[in-house]
Amino acid sequence: MEQILEVSYALDTFYFLMSGALVMWMAAGFAMLEAGMVRTKNTTEILAKNVGLFAIACIMYMLVGYNIMYPGEAVNSFFPGISFLIGGDNATADVLASGGEIYYSGMSDFFFQVVFVATAMSVVSGAVAERMKLMSFFVFAIVFTAFIYPMQGFWKWGGGFLDGLGFLDFAGSGVVHMAGASAALAGVLLLGARKGKYGSNGESKAIPGANLPLATLGTFILWLGWFGFNGGSELKISNVEEANAVAMIFVNTLMAAAGGVIGALVMSKIKFGKADLTMMLNGALAGLVAITAEPLTPSALEATLIGLVGGIIVVLAILAIDSKFKIDDPVGAISVHGVVGIFGLIAVTFTNPDASIVAQLTGIGVIFAWVFGTSLIVWGIIKAVMGIRVTEEEEYEGVDQSECGMEAYPEFTK
Amino acid sequence: MEQILEVSYALDTFYFLMSGALVMWMAAGFAMLEAGMVRTKNTTEILAKNVGLFAIACIMYMLVGYNIMYPGEAVNSFFPGISFLIGGDNATADVLASGGEIYYSGMSDFFFQVVFVATAMSVVSGAVAERMKLMSFFVFAIVFTAFIYPMQGFWKWGGGFLDGLGFLDFAGSGVVHMAGASAALAGVLLLGARKGKYGSNGESKAIPGANLPLATLGTFILWLGWFGFNGGSELKISNVEEANAVAMIFVNTLMAAAGGVIGALVMSKIKFGKADLTMMLNGALAGLVAITAEPLTPSALEATLIGLVGGIIVVLAILAIDSKFKIDDPVGAISVHGVVGIFGLIAVTFTNPDASIVAQLTGIGVIFAWVFGTSLIVWGIIKAVMGIRVTEEEEYEGVDQSECGMEAYPEFTK
Amino acid sequence: MEQILEVSYALDTFYFLMSGALVMWMAAGFAMLEAGMVRTKNTTEILAKNVGLFAIACIMYMLVGYNIMYPGEAVNSFFPGISFLIGGDNATADVLASGGEIYYSGMSDFFFQVVFVATAMSVVSGAVAERMKLMSFFVFAIVFTAFIYPMQGFWKWGGGFLDGLGFLDFAGSGVVHMAGASAALAGVLLLGARKGKYGSNGESKAIPGANLPLATLGTFILWLGWFGFNGGSELKISNVEEANAVAMIFVNTLMAAAGGVIGALVMSKIKFGKADLTMMLNGALAGLVAITAEPLTPSALEATLIGLVGGIIVVLAILAIDSKFKIDDPVGAISVHGVVGIFGLIAVTFTNPDASIVAQLTGIGVIFAWVFGTSLIVWGIIKAVMGIRVTEEEEYEGVDQSECGMEAYPEFTK
Repeated sequence: MEQILEVSYALDTFYFLMSGALVMWMAAGFAMLEAGMVRTKNTTEILAKNVGLFAIACIMYMLVGYNIMYPGEAVNSFFPGISFLIGGDNATADVLASGGEIYYSGMSDFFFQVVFVATAMSVVSGAVAERMKLMSFFVFAIVFTAFIYPMQGFWKWGGGFLDGLGFLDFAGSGVVHMAGASAALAGVLLLGARKGKYGSNGESKAIPGANLPLATLGTFILWLGWFGFNGGSELKISNVEEANAVAMIFVNTLMAAAGGVIGALVMSKIKFGKADLTMMLNGALAGLVAITAEPLTPSALEATLIGLVGGIIVVLAILAIDSKFKIDDPVGAISVHGVVGIFGLIAVTFTNPDASIVAQLTGIGVIFAWVFGTSLIVWGIIKAVMGIRVTEEEEYEGVDQSECGMEAYPEFTK
Repeated sequence: MEQILEVSYALDTFYFLMSGALVMWMAAGFAMLEAGMVRTKNTTEILAKNVGLFAIACIMYMLVGYNIMYPGEAVNSFFPGISFLIGGDNATADVLASGGEIYYSGMSDFFFQVVFVATAMSVVSGAVAERMKLMSFFVFAIVFTAFIYPMQGFWKWGGGFLDGLGFLDFAGSGVVHMAGASAALAGVLLLGARKGKYGSNGESKAIPGANLPLATLGTFILWLGWFGFNGGSELKISNVEEANAVAMIFVNTLMAAAGGVIGALVMSKIKFGKADLTMMLNGALAGLVAITAEPLTPSALEATLIGLVGGIIVVLAILAIDSKFKIDDPVGAISVHGVVGIFGLIAVTFTNPDASIVAQLTGIGVIFAWVFGTSLIVWGIIKAVMGIRVTEEEEYEGVDQSECGMEAYPEFTK
Repeated sequence: MEQILEVSYALDTFYFLMSGALVMWMAAGFAMLEAGMVRTKNTTEILAKNVGLFAIACIMYMLVGYNIMYPGEAVNSFFPGISFLIGGDNATADVLASGGEIYYSGMSDFFFQVVFVATAMSVVSGAVAERMKLMSFFVFAIVFTAFIYPMQGFWKWGGGFLDGLGFLDFAGSGVVHMAGASAALAGVLLLGARKGKYGSNGESKAIPGANLPLATLGTFILWLGWFGFNGGSELKISNVEEANAVAMIFVNTLMAAAGGVIGALVMSKIKFGKADLTMMLNGALAGLVAITAEPLTPSALEATLIGLVGGIIVVLAILAIDSKFKIDDPVGAISVHGVVGIFGLIAVTFTNPDASIVAQLTGIGVIFAWVFGTSLIVWGIIKAVMGIRVTEEEEYEGVDQSECGMEAYPEFTK
C-alpha cells in the first residue's frame, strides 16, 4: 500500500515534469514564430527579447510571483519565495500519512507553474515588436511576472475570489492567454504603430514576415507544447479516471488545433481567395487558445468545432484590429490570445454544465480590467522614466542594430 | 491489487500519450524537411500543405478512418466515429474487472493512431512538391486519411486478413511508410515532372533545396519522433518484459538511423567523392524506415546493419528513380519510404523467426496494389474534375504566389 | 508486491528512455547552434559533421565504448560490446529476486549513456568549424567516442579511481562538457585560426554567424534537452524521495540557465552597451554547464546564482580566449563547456557537503590531462597521415563545396 502511494507520487511527479518540459519548449515556439513574422532588421532583437523574458520570468516568479499566486504553499515567512525554495519538498512520511492527498512533488508544481508565466509574457513580446526599447520591455517583464500575472492567477488558481465565484478556466485561456494579450494591448496603445504601417489615408499596409518556415516551426512547437500546457493542467494521472481525463485532453487539444487550421483556411479562401499560411498558423493557435479554458468536457467533435470557430474568429479579429481599430500588432497576438481567449472562456459554457455565463463574463472583465489597468500604469511609468520607443532613425535602421548591435542574417540581406 | 491495476493503466496511458506527442512532432519534421528541400518560391505552399494535411488527417480519421481501421472499438453505431468519441472511455470498474486486459485509455489509443495517419499523408506531400494545386492535394488528403489508409490499416492492425496471413509489420514500414509512398507514386505519375527537371535529352538536372539547415532540423525531428513511433507501437510498458521491449526498440531505432547515416555517407563518398548532406539525411530516414517493420527482435548490432543497408539502398534508389525511371520526386520520398519500406518488411525475416517471406511479400503486394490502385483512381478523378497541376506560368513564378499569395522569404531573394 | 516491483521497474525505465530521448534531441541543438554561428559557405559541412558524428558516436560506443566505461555490465567476453547487446536484458525473475536492486532495463541505460557520448563529441565540432577536413574529423570522432571519452567516463561513472577519490560530477560538467572542450582545444591548437580571423597586428576580427534564429533555436533545444541530461542522471524516480530529487534537478537546471542569461546580458551591457544575443545564448548554455556537476543539492536560488556566475564567466572567457590567447573558437565551445565546466566542478563544493576541493581539482586535472593529451596525439597522427586542414583556396571558397559539394542556401547568397 505504501509502495503504491510512492509509485503513484512518482508517476504524477514525472507527468508534471514532462508536461512542464513541453510548456518550457513553448518558449522556443514563441521565439521562432515571432522571429519569422518580423522583418530581418528586427529579428535579433526579438530573439533576445524572448530569451531574456524567459529568464526574467523564471527568476521573478521564483522570488516573488509563485508566493503571491499560491500563498498556501509558503506561509509563515518574511520572504516566502526563497523560504519555499530552500524549504525542500514533501517528506515521504507526510506523503504516506496523507493517504494520497499529497500526490506530487512541490518542486514539480513550481516547475510547471513557472513555465506558464513565461508563456503569458511571451504573448506580449510579439505585439510590441519592431519598435520598442529592449530594456524597457525587460523592466515591464519584471513587474508583470513578479506581480501582475501572479495576482490574477491567485484570484483563480490560487483559490481567490474568481474561483469562489465559479469562474472556470481549466488551463488558462484567461489567466494566461488573455492576460498576456491585455498587457500587450496596453503596451501597444502607448507605443503606437510602426512607422509606415498606416498610410496617409489611414490604410493599413502589409508588412510581411521575413521567414515563414520559422513561423511555421514555431507554430508546430507551440502545438506540441500545448499537450503539456493543457494535459498537465489536469494535475494528476495516476488512476484510471485521471488517465482517461488526460487522454481526453490530449485528443481535444489536438482536434481543436486541427479545427482552427480548417476554420482559418476556409476564411482565408473566402476573404483572399488563397490559402494564407500565416492565417492557417494563427488558426491553429486560435484553436489551441479556444480549447484551453475547457479541454476536458467536450467530445472530440465538439473540440474540433470549438477550434474551428476559434480559427474563423481569429481571421476576422486580425483584420478588424488591423484595419478598423488601427492597432498595430505585428504577429496578431492580441487577436489570437485575447479575442480568442475570451471566446474560449465563453465556450466553456457550451460543454461544461458547471459553467455559468455570468461567472465567465465576470472573470473576463476582472482579468482584463486588472491586467490592462496595471499594465497601462506600468508601461506609462516606464515611458515617462526611460521611454518605451526607439528613435525614428533606430526604427528605420532596425532595432537589431540599436538594441543588440548585430544582424540576424548578415549575409542574406542587402 | 486494484490500485496496482490503476497505476499500471495510468503508466501505459501516459506512455501512449508521450509516444503520440513524439509522433505528432514528426509533422513538424516533415514540414521542415520538405521546406528545406524545395526552392524558395515553393516554400510557403509546402508549409501550408503540411499544416493543412495534418489538420485534415486528424479530422477525417476521427470522423471516419479510425472506425474503419479498428471497427471493434466502435460497434453498433450508424456513425461510429462520433459515437466512439462521444461515448467516453473505459470505466474504472471495467478496467478492474478485466484484471489487466484493459490496460490503457481508449482515447490515448486514438491519439496515438491519429498521428500515424498524418505521418503517412506527410510522405505524399514531398513527392508532389512544386507543381501541384494545393486544393487538389487537400481533396486527396481527405480521401486518403478517411478511407484508403484506414482500410489497409485494418487489414493488418485492425485484425484483418493480412494479419491472419502472418504478415508482420510492427510499426508500419508497410502500413504507414510504403502506403504513403504508394499514394505518392500514383500522384507523381499523373502529375509529371517539374518543368526543367529533365533536359531535352532526358538528362536529369539537380534542383537544389533552398535551406539545408531546415532539412537537417526536419530530419532530427523525425529521428526524435520515431522513438515514439516505434517505441509506442509496443503498446504497453508497465511490466519488466514490456519495459525491456520498449527499451530495446528505442536502442534499435537509434542504431538503425545511425547505420543509415553511415551507409549513405559511404555510398555518397563512392558515388560523388563528397559527403552529400542530403543523402546522409535520407540515409538516417532510410535506417528508420527499414527498422520500423521489426524494431524488437534484432540486436543493436543487427539493427545497425539493417539501417546501414537501408542507407545504401536509398542512395541507389534515389539515383535510379531520378535518372533511370525519370520519376521526379523532389525530396526522395518514394525511395525513402517506399523502396526502403519494402526492404524493411523483407528484413523482418532476418531476425524474427515468426516471419515468412511469403507473408511479407504478400503484404507488400496487397498494400501496394490497394494504395497505388485506389490512389490512381482518386488522383485521376481529381485531375479530371478540378485539375491537379498549376499552370506553367504559375509553376515558373512559384506556387507560393498562386496558391498562398505570399513569399516565404520576401527579403532574401531577388 | 511483485507487481509493484514490475511497475516501478517500468516507470524507471520509461523515465530513462524519455530522458535519453531529450538528450538525443540535444544533437539537433548543437547542429542548429553551430549552423547558425558559422558563415553560409561552411554551413552544409557543419550540418554533415553533426549528423555524421552522432551516427559514429552511437556505433562506436555500442561496439567498444560502453564496455570500457561500464565493464561490469559485460564481463566474460572477448568482444564485450556485442555480447552485451546480443545478451538481452534483465529477466523478470531476477528483477523480482533482487527486491528492487535491479530497477531499470539495461538497454535503457545504454540508450541514455550513448546519447551522452554524442553530446561530448558535439562540443568538439563547433570549435574546429570552417577549416577542418570533414573526414579527418570523423576519424577523430571514432577514436574519441570509442576510447578517449569512455576511459575517463569509467574513471568516474564506471566506478574507477576518480570516483574512489571522492570526485563529484553528477551529470558531467567534467566527464562530458570539459572532456569535449579539452578535445576541442587540442584540435584547435593543431589546426590554427581561420584565415582572416586575426589581422596583421594580431587584432581579432569578428566573423558574424549567418543565421541567429537558428542559433537561438539550437540553444532552446539544448535547454530543453538538458532536463533529460541532468534529470535523467538521478537514474531513478520511482519513490517519493527520488521523485522529489528529479523535480529539484529540473527546477535547478531551469533556474541556472535563467541565471546564465541574465549574467551574460548584464556583462554584455557593461562591455558592449548592447544586449548581445550570442552572449545571451552562451550565457544560457554556461548556466546549464555550470549546474550540471551538481544540480541536486543547491536551492533554486543558489542554482540561479551559480548560473549567473557561469554567465558572467563565459563572456569574460570568450573575450579572453579570442583576444588574449588568440585561440579561434567560432562558437565559443571551449569557453562554454571547458572554462565554465571547470567552474561547475568547483561550484559543487559550494552546496554539497560531501565535496572536497582537492578531489574536484584532481578530477579536473586528470580529465583535462587525459583528454587533452590523448586528443593531441590522435589529432597529431591524423594531421601527419591525412591532414586536418583544408587548403587555403578551399577555406576561401567554403568547406561546403570542398567537403560536401553543395551550398546550404543556394538562393540566398551571391
